[in-house]
Parts: sequence; structure tokens; C-alpha cells
Amino acid sequence: MNVVPVQMHDEIVTKAYQARGYDFEESREAAKWCSMAAWHGIKTHNAVKALHLDHLFGAGPGGTVPGAEIEVLPSRFAAVEKWNANYKLGQSVASRAMERAMQLADEYGVGIVTVDNAFHYLWGGGYVIDAANKGYIAYTNCTTTLAEVVPFKGKYPTIGTNPHSWGFPTKDLIGFNVCIDWATSKIAMGRVQQLKREGKELPPECAIDENGNYTTNPADVFGLVTFGDHKGYGLSLANEMFGAFSGGSLPTIRGHFGEDHPNEKLGISCYFQVTHPDALDCGNFAGGRSQGENVKAVLNDILGHGNENCLFPGQIEAGSAAESEKAGGLLFTDVEVEELAKMAEESGVAFDRAAINKA
Amino acid sequence: MNVVPVQMHDEIVTKAYQARGYDFEESREAAKWCSMAAWHGIKTHNAVKALHLDHLFGAGPGGTVPGAEIEVLPSRFAAVEKWNANYKLGQSVASRAMERAMQLADEYGVGIVTVDNAFHYLWGGGYVIDAANKGYIAYTNCTTTLAEVVPFKGKYPTIGTNPHSWGFPTKDLIGFNVCIDWATSKIAMGRVQQLKREGKELPPECAIDENGNYTTNPADVFGLVTFGDHKGYGLSLANEMFGAFSGGSLPTIRGHFGEDHPNEKLGISCYFQVTHPDALDCGNFAGGRSQGENVKAVLNDILGHGNENCLFPGQIEAGSAAESEKAGGLLFTDVEVEELAKMAEESGVAFDRAAINKA
Repeated sequence: MNVVPVQMHDEIVTKAYQARGYDFEESREAAKWCSMAAWHGIKTHNAVKALHLDHLFGAGPGGTVPGAEIEVLPSRFAAVEKWNANYKLGQSVASRAMERAMQLADEYGVGIVTVDNAFHYLWGGGYVIDAANKGYIAYTNCTTTLAEVVPFKGKYPTIGTNPHSWGFPTKDLIGFNVCIDWATSKIAMGRVQQLKREGKELPPECAIDENGNYTTNPADVFGLVTFGDHKGYGLSLANEMFGAFSGGSLPTIRGHFGEDHPNEKLGISCYFQVTHPDALDCGNFAGGRSQGENVKAVLNDILGHGNENCLFPGQIEAGSAAESEKAGGLLFTDVEVEELAKMAEESGVAFDRAAINKA
Repeated sequence: MNVVPVQMHDEIVTKAYQARGYDFEESREAAKWCSMAAWHGIKTHNAVKALHLDHLFGAGPGGTVPGAEIEVLPSRFAAVEKWNANYKLGQSVASRAMERAMQLADEYGVGIVTVDNAFHYLWGGGYVIDAANKGYIAYTNCTTTLAEVVPFKGKYPTIGTNPHSWGFPTKDLIGFNVCIDWATSKIAMGRVQQLKREGKELPPECAIDENGNYTTNPADVFGLVTFGDHKGYGLSLANEMFGAFSGGSLPTIRGHFGEDHPNEKLGISCYFQVTHPDALDCGNFAGGRSQGENVKAVLNDILGHGNENCLFPGQIEAGSAAESEKAGGLLFTDVEVEELAKMAEESGVAFDRAAINKA
């Protein structure tokens, strides 16, 4: 594996975004959250994916708007803010929204920021882990750009892969933050495409064909299935509901930039919530434990009794972060390094191969 | 099916609770939420189940405390309240906590009540549907009395069946409130017991035996499995986390009343959150729609396009409520009527069989 210094990566990615018209601040934010994903081993949401996404949906008709200003909309409610992101870059908006939710939680115990006219923020886990690093309980959900998932027992994809991400501040207790973070489809569309490229079959009952029947042939996939049958469907629907109450339009035309939908909106919606742990602390922990000691005791109980080989959610990502830390940079495959080199060339940045070590 | 008038049912159940030492107010609340469950066809959480639960875990050492007072703990945070329920009856505490969360949401946009030293509140869906009837977006989770579920790939049950319930105010839009409400185990322990009684096998991969292997023999069940593998595990763990941050003790001894755990606590924890829909309304809905019209358009889109035979979460319960409405009372089986008659007799209430019609 190649070890790419974070500073080098961030400079290239920042410049790549700037070359696409984004201002310095939002480009720097975009690079930071790409680093965050790569640092935690999230291959699907690193800079390569981010810029590919920008290429597909970004700056252009209906896509993100470089340099857009976030409008904080008037509200009579102190602990909840409503933002019109004006299609500003997703990572910028998400990191600022989570930051604001933390400030609101400092004041009210809980803070929510709901965002209309938003754009894909990439890895939700990054924002909640960052908030957990700062000591908060954090949560985010969003509607995803395309409706690729069918309702339970359905035939036509009308809901997104709609992820949920929760982060809990447990780093000082068990070495990493518990982070529950996944999409509500059983498998990702990216996985379908990968299996198609590799000529392999899908796992059973993960996707349907155009007749609404289960298929394991990636070429026949018309819609994805939610995890856990009606339960995952409920969780995906929840994001659609939060989106619909905030300002999101019809899921089946979301992200269909370039098509003619004069009276509809094509952007996604995001929801951020932060709770201050002190606001939940009822001050009466067993055995005279502090709040932190109690959380640790509960976690130890859960993975005790013969469950020692189980993992907590977030533990795999924390392991990848530890490897990045040990190697002293982002662990990239040869292919990813070449993508980064191409990105540097396109953005007019020198690509210093000598700075990349092998791990 | 028998049609039991709500007033008759509530009087018997109230008296039954009073006969066990609960005061009039909490007994009336208990009866109300039993009605609410029965009205919506929730057979597992009606009065029969409630009083059985009270018999097992209720008033007595470590159980609920009749007439207990809820203490609102001091907090510097205005939008989040911390309650010590002092083991007051679960339905009383839950209904009051949700009511308070609604008041907080009126003021701050969002309101949270977290409850320490709590007791099983029965059907979570009831509280969020009630809040949705009043126009709010509501959510609750709790840790369940016993740890019956194994962590993903685990061997020993260390987490609860820990349910989540979300309610969205959609009754005026589509005729009922969307209510997402389920436990995080693939099947309920009650279902295991039922299949055992009936000499039937479990569905595959729902439970493990004492060696940590999957079993379909109800007699060999040592622990239940979460729905959706690691995803349901994350959702169950989330409840344990909220509990641990608030005041919950070790899950493996929770509900083990009567055992000797001098330095530990045996009660459950609950979390209630209400969000005011106005606080999420960014005021820019496509096609000039109002918030409600937009939510309706999104819901119609989701169950359109060939998905017309799918259901929304909460729709089955709404169908049962409509049947109750049509019949003019609670639809009880003969067995349930006899349980109610027994309850009446034990509580010294006359049981007017003539008031029960057939539907």
C-alpha cells in the first residue's frame, strides 16, 4: 500500500475543487472530509469518488453551485435551524451544519439543523465521528441523490439508499467512538456495478428486476431492496419524511438534473442533530460510576460473556484510522495514487512521487 | 370477534391496577394506553399482557413502585429534561414524558425527555401515534427489561430487543399517521414461546443455542439475533448507549429483580423526542405546495409507479383502528374476554356481558 501524506493529498484535492470553480474555503472543506474518509478506510467516499460525483452531478445545470452562500432561514424556534444551502458543495454544508448543531447543543442540550436544497455530503460517518471526537452525541440522515430502492414488497425504485449515521463519544473510554453508519439498502448500487464488472452474481434477495422479481444477475437490476425487510424500509422512509417536511420534492425525480421538471426541485435534504451528553446525565450511575465509567461498563458487559470476538460499530473504521496513523498518511492503492496524480496534473499541481512511501 | 366498549374496558383495567396498589391517576393512564394498543390491533401489548407483565415484574421488590413521584432533575439545558421516574408505572411515565417533550418542542422546536429508573412502557407506537395525532413528529426508544439478544456474531445475549418508534403527522394527508415501530431482534421472544407451545420450528437464523449456533428448535433458544445483521445490532446498541449515558446499568442484570446485585441498578431507560414540524419547514416546496401537500406528494410518489400494493409503516395498525372504530369498541377474542372477566372479578368490578357485542 502507498502512504500519501495528508497535506499533499489535501493540497491536490483542494486545488482540484478550485479548478472546478469552487472557492478556497469550500474546496479546503471538501478535501478535509475526503481525507477523513480515506483515513478511516472508507474507499467508497474518498477524493476519487468525490470528484467523480462532482463530475457526474456537480457544477453545471442543476448540480452544485460553486461559491453558493448558505441562507439561515428565519425561525421562531431556538434549538432548530433551517438552512437553504442553495446547492452549495455537500461537504461544506454538512460540516458547517454539524458545527452549528454542536453550538445549539451547548446552549439547549440538543441542536438540529435541517437543510433544504442540499447536495450529497459523502460519508455521513465522518461528521458524526468528528462531533464525537469533540465530545458530542451526533446523528445525521439524508435523502440520497437517486431513488434506487423499492419499498418493501414493491416493484419500482421510489426511495433512496438513505443512510443513517450515529456517533457516540466513547474514544476516551474504549479507544474509539462508537459509530453506527450504513445505508438502508441491503447492498449498495456501487456493489452491483462492481459485481457486474467482475462478471459475478449478487447475493440472493438484494435486488429486483423490472418485473419486480428477485434477481442475482447484476445486469438485470432494476431496484435495490431494503435491509431487514419492512424494518429497513421504515428507516429509509424516515429520511424521505424528514426531507419532505423540510423541502425535498418527489424522490423519483431527485437528482434527475437535465430532465425537464419545471415545477419540481431536484436536490436532496439533510438532517443533523447533536445532543450534549451532559443533558442526558441523570447523575445516578450504579456503583458510584461517572457517566463515562458507566458507558464503559455497559460496553464491556455487551462484548463480555463470550462475545469478546464481536465488534462495536465503528471499530473497523477505527482500525483503519490506527493503520493510517501508524503509516503516517493515507493508505492508497496504486490505482488510487494514479487517480490522484491525474487530479494533480489536471489542477496544475506538481505531484511529488518521492513523498509517497510504501507501507 | 367480541366488541368490548372502551369505557367498560378502561374501567376494569383501571380498577385492576388500583387493586394492585396504583393510584387512580396512574391506573387510568395505564388503562388508556392498553386501550390504545388494543384499538390498533396490538395483541402483544394490550391489558392482558400489561397485567401479566405487572404480575411478573410489577409492584414488589425491584419492580414498579405504585404512586411513585417523577423527579425532574436540575439541568442547565432548556430543551432537554432529565427525569428520575423512581420506578413509576411505565405507561404513566411515557405518556407524561411525551407530553412534556411536545411542550418543549412548542418552545424550542425540539424537546427531549430522558428517563432514568424507568419501567417497561409497553407499546412505543402508541405514544408516537398520539403525538402525531396532535401534529408532532415523535420518537422514542428504550432498553428492554431483559437482555435476550446477542450482538452481531455473538454467543451470549447481552442486549435488549430494544425497540424504536417514530411517528409522523400524516393523518390529515393520507388518513393515518406513518408510524415506524419495531423491535431490533429478528423475532420476539414471545414468538419463540408461542412456537414452542405449538410444537413448531423457528424461521432460520433468528436465534442461537447455548453454543452460539443457529437453531430452529424453540426449546434450544439461548439468545435472539438482531434483524439485518450488523445494522439491527447497531440500532439495538444505540438504545443501550442512550441508556448508559442517562443512568442505565449493565444490560445482563437488567430486570433481574430478586437477585443480589447490591451495587447495580436493575431498571430500564427511556428516551423521548418530539420535533415541531414548523421547525423543519424551510418554506420552499416545489410547485407552490404547502408542507402538508408536499409530504402527501412525496408519499404518493413512493407508493406510486407500480408500488400501489405496498403499505406504509403504521398502515396495518391504522386498519385495525378503523375496524375498532367501525365496530364501536375493542375487538377481543373469546380468550381475551375471559381474561378481562377474570380481571374484573379479581378487582371487584361487575362484568356486564350484555354490553359486549359480536362483530
